[in-house]
Amino acid sequence: MTQYSLADLNAMSAADFTAALADIYEHSPWVAEAASTQRPFATLAALHAAMAAAVQDASAEARTALVQAHPDLAGKAARAGTLTADSTHEQASVGLDRLSEAEFARFHQLNDAYKAKFGIPFIVCVRRHTKDSILKAFERRLAHGNADEFDTAIEEIVRIGALRLDQRVTAPDQLPLNGRLSTHVLDTHSGQPAVNVPIELWELSAAGTNRLIWRGVTNKDGRTDSPPIAGRPVPMGTYELHFSVGGYFSARGVPLSDPPFLDVVPIRFSVAKPEGHYHVPLVVSPWSYSTYRGS
Amino acid sequence: MTQYSLADLNAMSAADFTAALADIYEHSPWVAEAASTQRPFATLAALHAAMAAAVQDASAEARTALVQAHPDLAGKAARAGTLTADSTHEQASVGLDRLSEAEFARFHQLNDAYKAKFGIPFIVCVRRHTKDSILKAFERRLAHGNADEFDTAIEEIVRIGALRLDQRVTAPDQLPLNGRLSTHVLDTHSGQPAVNVPIELWELSAAGTNRLIWRGVTNKDGRTDSPPIAGRPVPMGTYELHFSVGGYFSARGVPLSDPPFLDVVPIRFSVAKPEGHYHVPLVVSPWSYSTYRGS
Amino acid sequence: MTQYSLADLNAMSAADFTAALADIYEHSPWVAEAASTQRPFATLAALHAAMAAAVQDASAEARTALVQAHPDLAGKAARAGTLTADSTHEQASVGLDRLSEAEFARFHQLNDAYKAKFGIPFIVCVRRHTKDSILKAFERRLAHGNADEFDTAIEEIVRIGALRLDQRVTAPDQLPLNGRLSTHVLDTHSGQPAVNVPIELWELSAAGTNRLIWRGVTNKDGRTDSPPIAGRPVPMGTYELHFSVGGYFSARGVPLSDPPFLDVVPIRFSVAKPEGHYHVPLVVSPWSYSTYRGS
Amino acid sequence: MTQYSLADLNAMSAADFTAALADIYEHSPWVAEAASTQRPFATLAALHAAMAAAVQDASAEARTALVQAHPDLAGKAARAGTLTADSTHEQASVGLDRLSEAEFARFHQLNDAYKAKFGIPFIVCVRRHTKDSILKAFERRLAHGNADEFDTAIEEIVRIGALRLDQRVTAPDQLPLNGRLSTHVLDTHSGQPAVNVPIELWELSAAGTNRLIWRGVTNKDGRTDSPPIAGRPVPMGTYELHFSVGGYFSARGVPLSDPPFLDVVPIRFSVAKPEGHYHVPLVVSPWSYSTYRGS
Repeated sequence: MTQYSLADLNAMSAADFTAALADIYEHSPWVAEAASTQRPFATLAALHAAMAAAVQDASAEARTALVQAHPDLAGKAARAGTLTADSTHEQASVGLDRLSEAEFARFHQLNDAYKAKFGIPFIVCVRRHTKDSILKAFERRLAHGNADEFDTAIEEIVRIGALRLDQRVTAPDQLPLNGRLSTHVLDTHSGQPAVNVPIELWELSAAGTNRLIWRGVTNKDGRTDSPPIAGRPVPMGTYELHFSVGGYFSARGVPLSDPPFLDVVPIRFSVAKPEGHYHVPLVVSPWSYSTYRGS
Repeated sequence: MTQYSLADLNAMSAADFTAALADIYEHSPWVAEAASTQRPFATLAALHAAMAAAVQDASAEARTALVQAHPDLAGKAARAGTLTADSTHEQASVGLDRLSEAEFARFHQLNDAYKAKFGIPFIVCVRRHTKDSILKAFERRLAHGNADEFDTAIEEIVRIGALRLDQRVTAPDQLPLNGRLSTHVLDTHSGQPAVNVPIELWELSAAGTNRLIWRGVTNKDGRTDSPPIAGRPVPMGTYELHFSVGGYFSARGVPLSDPPFLDVVPIRFSVAKPEGHYHVPLVVSPWSYSTYRGS
Repeated sequence: MTQYSLADLNAMSAADFTAALADIYEHSPWVAEAASTQRPFATLAALHAAMAAAVQDASAEARTALVQAHPDLAGKAARAGTLTADSTHEQASVGLDRLSEAEFARFHQLNDAYKAKFGIPFIVCVRRHTKDSILKAFERRLAHGNADEFDTAIEEIVRIGALRLDQRVTAPDQLPLNGRLSTHVLDTHSGQPAVNVPIELWELSAAGTNRLIWRGVTNKDGRTDSPPIAGRPVPMGTYELHFSVGGYFSARGVPLSDPPFLDVVPIRFSVAKPEGHYHVPLVVSPWSYSTYRGS
Repeated sequence: MTQYSLADLNAMSAADFTAALADIYEHSPWVAEAASTQRPFATLAALHAAMAAAVQDASAEARTALVQAHPDLAGKAARAGTLTADSTHEQASVGLDRLSEAEFARFHQLNDAYKAKFGIPFIVCVRRHTKDSILKAFERRLAHGNADEFDTAIEEIVRIGALRLDQRVTAPDQLPLNGRLSTHVLDTHSGQPAVNVPIELWELSAAGTNRLIWRGVTNKDGRTDSPPIAGRPVPMGTYELHFSVGGYFSARGVPLSDPPFLDVVPIRFSVAKPEGHYHVPLVVSPWSYSTYRGS
């Protein structure tokens, strides 16, 4: 993927600008073209706003075409490899390229039901989601009315566009798209940050097919060198952080029972706002712990 | 199983006493017979001590015969249904009657290795154990020396005898055999005991075949009407308590995110002393919780 | 003070019954007399209800006389020693017999303002209060309307009567008059109840004249042999529990900084419902602690 | 006080350099003079090390003279106003200029006892201390042997010199002299940082003359815009942080008892290492709280 600076984009011909941002909105270069006339943009936020406004101000036909240009989620196009590059990456990020046959069938069935009711494909900004939260959204949105659902599709398209723009363009400012999931471990037995505690982050699935999505270890501040999730939305869903405190206390020579009362401490929590900051610390002794949503 | 009062046992003929307690020690009525001469017993503890002393004071031949009288754990006798009634119940209590083929093969292999090394069957007081902790004990004890391991076998036999005696005889006193696992839930959002919180107790297994072993709900004191485990040893092993707090707070009308930050709170801990008291409370708000080993 | 059993009171002549309970309502034996006709009483609650009903059903003149029969709080009668025995004990329980000149002047001024506005003495059930909460009640009630305040005076009189009755009469049942303040200390460094931790309970005063009202030490369960307050109302007010954990951890040989990060841990809380159960535990390591309103 | 950059000091004549740093060591310009020959210094640490080495390498007579050049703590010179400017500010920082007559007499007596035993004035780096910790150090050091105590005096002089140098000289590096005391408040009722919580920091004194030394309020991150103590040592001593959470929860419309169970939450802790980082957070709901030494 070629990256452009905002300055470069401002300096390009209209045609080059349109080409550079042609695929921000799926198969719809006219969105970039409409925005090109309002250059120069002082900020990425202004560029995004101009493209979003082009979508909002477009004719009903153009908006419908934009919606129809989107592929099915986990659909046949994905299996056939005929998606746009962006759609391919996005669907893979949430595991839609690795569905079991049962899951594939479930998506197929929901896609069909959705199209039968609304006449448009089901569109969701998958990078803000887990497989489980997409299925929940599918079921919730199937109950909506037609007009609402068309508006929701447009909203999701604008979110998709914003995330694509954020990856394509370097700029002085940032769009408020990114969440953060971080943790730290305090050892209340010694009164110090807990150093060298292995941590795993698991994405839970109602179907029981939990997925290890991050692995790290605490540094001398009891934090991880980089947070489990940063620089992108935190997908809506349910997670478990696993802290291996038994080995940590044992390595420090702390007297423990055998097996230790606490060995791997799981903390299960759900994310509702992908753009939120979720700090989930562990304050722990060999016989007690606490956690809270921090900031 | 017929139960006897200590007074009845004191008043019986020696032969009846011996018959009544013949199977406290596996296939070895001579233990009861030896104890019969020291009647009357003021306490169950005194009766147990007399039987244990009879074992300790017996000849090397008699002690060896006692050890050899025990069946294999999860062995062919169990499959064939030729165990004593006590052994059958004990092995079932820990799931040894419901092993997968792979597990059965593993036990078979360990039994053989143990008998090849020590010349005696592997004996463990299964009611103090989970399947996982038996496998760990098997591996640990395979590394022991011969003399130590014979002593360990006798110790375990005396523990088995104590638990059988406790079930067979009613007496004014109790043997210190029973542990306790209890919990309670405090709601720090309202400052009150959390009422009607569903709780599950899972026994975890390294093989991933976790087992739901208890289900309850908190009463108006935030406790459960009866504790998850009481009146028996708490089997050594690793457990998770699952507290369904999301539904609890939602039912109280507390504003929550969707999905709630905390829904099912798992607390994972291990039990090292089956005779210990494990109080594992949950102090919880919609955004934080703490737990500790209480008493 | 002579105590009577409910059975004795049921069996007495009406005159003896009235004499026995003459001073439950201040200078108003007619309340007992009215209740005497409804004997026998199956419970203390029934006796109390009968006396309270006699007050409620009395003529306006009788009710006014009852209110007027009460002495000033911390007034000249108290200094002159001309109060009833009950009033003397009650006022002393909250320290009204040990006021500074400034405090005495403040009460005098409030009594005068109250009588000037309402034409009756300020009546409050002092055993449910601290000096500070009485002053706050004084100020709050001075803002009331006349009718409300007369009703409040009657309510307080009935509360005083209930507490006097509870002390005077032994019965199978108890009136729901008594609160409870308890604590326990869990050591999360060792995973055990903290034994031999000295605890103090202080009653705080806005004027800064804090008062040590209880001293104890934790037993082998981490609790105190008897709770700081039990068998009586917990006076409304603000308290601090002081836990001397520095010496406790030091005596156990736990490595500490010098001075220890935590030495005396103060927990400050207020009591709003004198009949409530306030369990205020301390869960503590040398470097952390938590507390919560338990039950 | 004139400040110099390290570059300026490196470029000066030896005489100007010595004059600029003459009073870093009390009445002893020869320390600066000795260091002047080793210029240029790449870092403040190197300059400090050179001056400290000059003290360590000086003759016994010169070292003794340096020690003797120091004034009494809270002594007559302080009252007479004849201290150096640095000593005046240092003694004032810890309140030695505002002693009661009883405290002044106590210091006088300890100074005399110390000089009678050791023949030198009692020297301590007061900026690392509170009045209480100075008195404790006085008593502890009176029990030392002569040689040890002379070494301790030199150590404290070097600490004083380091802190003076840190204030006098701007440089790319910093000496590891400064501690930090910080806090933050998490609201577990709403799952957010607690905003607008008033906080006070009190220095406790065994004599009961507690001193309010800082007042702040939490910002939108639940932190204070600047920490209670930063950019200087955290004086050894005992402190209380007071968090006014009652008003905070009340302002948010959270239902509370009257008075609220928790209103002002005091957290009492002691500082042993003035160069340490003490993060003392409050994690609080209307009915519970926890704290820990964080980092």
